[in-house]
Amino acid sequence: MAIITLTSDFGEKDHFAGAIKGAIYSELSDVRIVDISHNVSPFSISEAAYIIQNAYTSFPKGTIHIIGIDAELNPENKHIAVLLDGHYFICANNGIMSMICTEINPERIVEINIHEKVQSSFPVLDVFVKVACHIARGGTLDVIGKRIQDIKPIQNLKPYINDDQMQIIGSIIYVDNYGNVITNIKRNFFENIQKGRAYKISARNHSFNKIYNKYSDIVDFTKPAADRHTEGKGLVVFNSSNYLEIAIYKSNTTTVGGASTLMGLKLMDTITVNFYKD
Amino acid sequence: MAIITLTSDFGEKDHFAGAIKGAIYSELSDVRIVDISHNVSPFSISEAAYIIQNAYTSFPKGTIHIIGIDAELNPENKHIAVLLDGHYFICANNGIMSMICTEINPERIVEINIHEKVQSSFPVLDVFVKVACHIARGGTLDVIGKRIQDIKPIQNLKPYINDDQMQIIGSIIYVDNYGNVITNIKRNFFENIQKGRAYKISARNHSFNKIYNKYSDIVDFTKPAADRHTEGKGLVVFNSSNYLEIAIYKSNTTTVGGASTLMGLKLMDTITVNFYKD
Amino acid sequence: MAIITLTSDFGEKDHFAGAIKGAIYSELSDVRIVDISHNVSPFSISEAAYIIQNAYTSFPKGTIHIIGIDAELNPENKHIAVLLDGHYFICANNGIMSMICTEINPERIVEINIHEKVQSSFPVLDVFVKVACHIARGGTLDVIGKRIQDIKPIQNLKPYINDDQMQIIGSIIYVDNYGNVITNIKRNFFENIQKGRAYKISARNHSFNKIYNKYSDIVDFTKPAADRHTEGKGLVVFNSSNYLEIAIYKSNTTTVGGASTLMGLKLMDTITVNFYKD
Repeated sequence: MAIITLTSDFGEKDHFAGAIKGAIYSELSDVRIVDISHNVSPFSISEAAYIIQNAYTSFPKGTIHIIGIDAELNPENKHIAVLLDGHYFICANNGIMSMICTEINPERIVEINIHEKVQSSFPVLDVFVKVACHIARGGTLDVIGKRIQDIKPIQNLKPYINDDQMQIIGSIIYVDNYGNVITNIKRNFFENIQKGRAYKISARNHSFNKIYNKYSDIVDFTKPAADRHTEGKGLVVFNSSNYLEIAIYKSNTTTVGGASTLMGLKLMDTITVNFYKD
Repeated sequence: MAIITLTSDFGEKDHFAGAIKGAIYSELSDVRIVDISHNVSPFSISEAAYIIQNAYTSFPKGTIHIIGIDAELNPENKHIAVLLDGHYFICANNGIMSMICTEINPERIVEINIHEKVQSSFPVLDVFVKVACHIARGGTLDVIGKRIQDIKPIQNLKPYINDDQMQIIGSIIYVDNYGNVITNIKRNFFENIQKGRAYKISARNHSFNKIYNKYSDIVDFTKPAADRHTEGKGLVVFNSSNYLEIAIYKSNTTTVGGASTLMGLKLMDTITVNFYKD
Repeated sequence: MAIITLTSDFGEKDHFAGAIKGAIYSELSDVRIVDISHNVSPFSISEAAYIIQNAYTSFPKGTIHIIGIDAELNPENKHIAVLLDGHYFICANNGIMSMICTEINPERIVEINIHEKVQSSFPVLDVFVKVACHIARGGTLDVIGKRIQDIKPIQNLKPYINDDQMQIIGSIIYVDNYGNVITNIKRNFFENIQKGRAYKISARNHSFNKIYNKYSDIVDFTKPAADRHTEGKGLVVFNSSNYLEIAIYKSNTTTVGGASTLMGLKLMDTITVNFYKD
């Protein structure tokens, strides 16, 4: 049974996500629809890119991913379908796919050209669903679009390394449900520059010289619980998606606060890693 | 396979929506359950009516829609099941169905009368699920209720036209995830009065003399991007559900703001359309 | 077809819940996944316990419930799988199961021991999904864990009764989507102490001497609607889960307010019931 996932900025209240599911079931009775997220911040390309990149790999090959962010068709915002890593992605050519595509080369990209048949102010419903169902029925990309070679890049998404390899300048690309802030510095990238050297990670007036492998590694379990004082403490981890993340141990954005509120960190803020001489 | 949709004001945190799905699967192993929205504002009849009206048409005929808003049974709030446009709706007789029913005549309405068998403080779980599963198994409405002719209307939901057809007075019936405000003025209704005349649309101290067909029609793509200044600008469109909507181009309620916050517009506010003499 | 439910504090925005669904479908093509809630307050054991307790009973026997709250493996936070009331629960041994287990004895508890094969900072994805799919395929608990006798209790979750049975001191364990506050006093427990006596229920400076069976029982339907003044009024009910609840009739936390905001009641606040002499 084909699987179609949905990622959008429609929110959870409006009828949009429901209507899309209805439209898919009207075309295909035997399909599985999975919500990934409808709470991407409105028009946020980088958030959508981060979410879809980290979700898609858990799904079986052949899954079809509809991404409904900033999808209105206009002369500068075409619709594309991309086959990459055995998965299909349907979205606007607005940069969303560039985060994934810098790591894995797409096998095929087409610019969707079925719009003369469907005129609408809701292209995710009218165009993306048609394309997804076409693929789910075993159709090829070439039937619904013409091949193109390149997709639109997202600017400034990669961290900067200075010439003597002593410093990485990264930025915050996502704030998660716990208020933890996630940078664009991936574990592999970091370790290739680090080469075992000591380092200091700085964000505003906070700094860290250790990266944990999981959150509770900050806790010294040999001490009695009352002497630990770890809840609410800041730490740095490589998160489960292998991104460098600044976190608060057992944070809660509505009570004690998360890294974003407690340290005053927000989207696009700079994170600096300075390496020490060996 | 039968499809049952859920629309409610239960929110996304409590166990209510999950419990309802469990109850449906306990009765029917082979059924598809689709969430439309659980984030209707508590007890908001007009929001629920707007959402279900715009979502249901995408689903296949025969779909069963459970609407759990203000559903506690009492002498003035009976439960009904309605067959309309080939779809089944199960809800309280509190006005929710009146928005749809003014456009399409119901084929059948019954007042549900299976309550002597089920006493509960959670009728959506105990009554609506039973009715939905009965219909999903091919049962008729007459088995679970007695026929009635009329449903309870929502007051003041239709826009007002003055006698000389020079003015429409409408109101805001919904604010969507992007902060765009949606009025009760539909495209057909508007065009029948307009008859090609020029017009001015007013909401508080804002006015517009053009209605776009899609959001990005406001952008002049022949200009360089830096000279356009369209992000954050107000505009009027007929939205994808054909309602007249006041929107902000690429709005975001948590950062730049949406039409509701930027223009100070809220539910039930008045929108006026004045037509000019030919 | 096996049913796997998901309850977590992942929120609705991040990729976590989507990734888990993808991982389940990658292992099992024929399974039903049902979201119960992903909006448990971060790390809130008591909220998660309340939600899962009230949701699970609606599902068919044999359902598998994954609970992803505070699930990072560490020396004091082991992973368990519990068979209870014909249902399977997979979670951390952090107290979540103790609310259910005080009412119904578990048939079997195992401490999961498959971790040498899976090292990860996201155990719900890597460990709980594996265990759930193992059970869904008909596997036994003994294959994935070693039996233990007891689970970790939640402290202070039961109400206190004074020696002469004249007073119950309870506390607020949950605030629902409508702002209604739910106490740890269950109907059976209350009625066993009450034995038909009159009583006064006090919370801060509010008191009540009547418990309704449903919300609209507060309305006198023989009066004309304009003379009732019930909307926004406080009342006490045994809710649909049989917990004593302080509610506002037709509350809305974002407009008129709910019991929590209007009466200043919050999680862990004390509720007192005083009984009168016969």
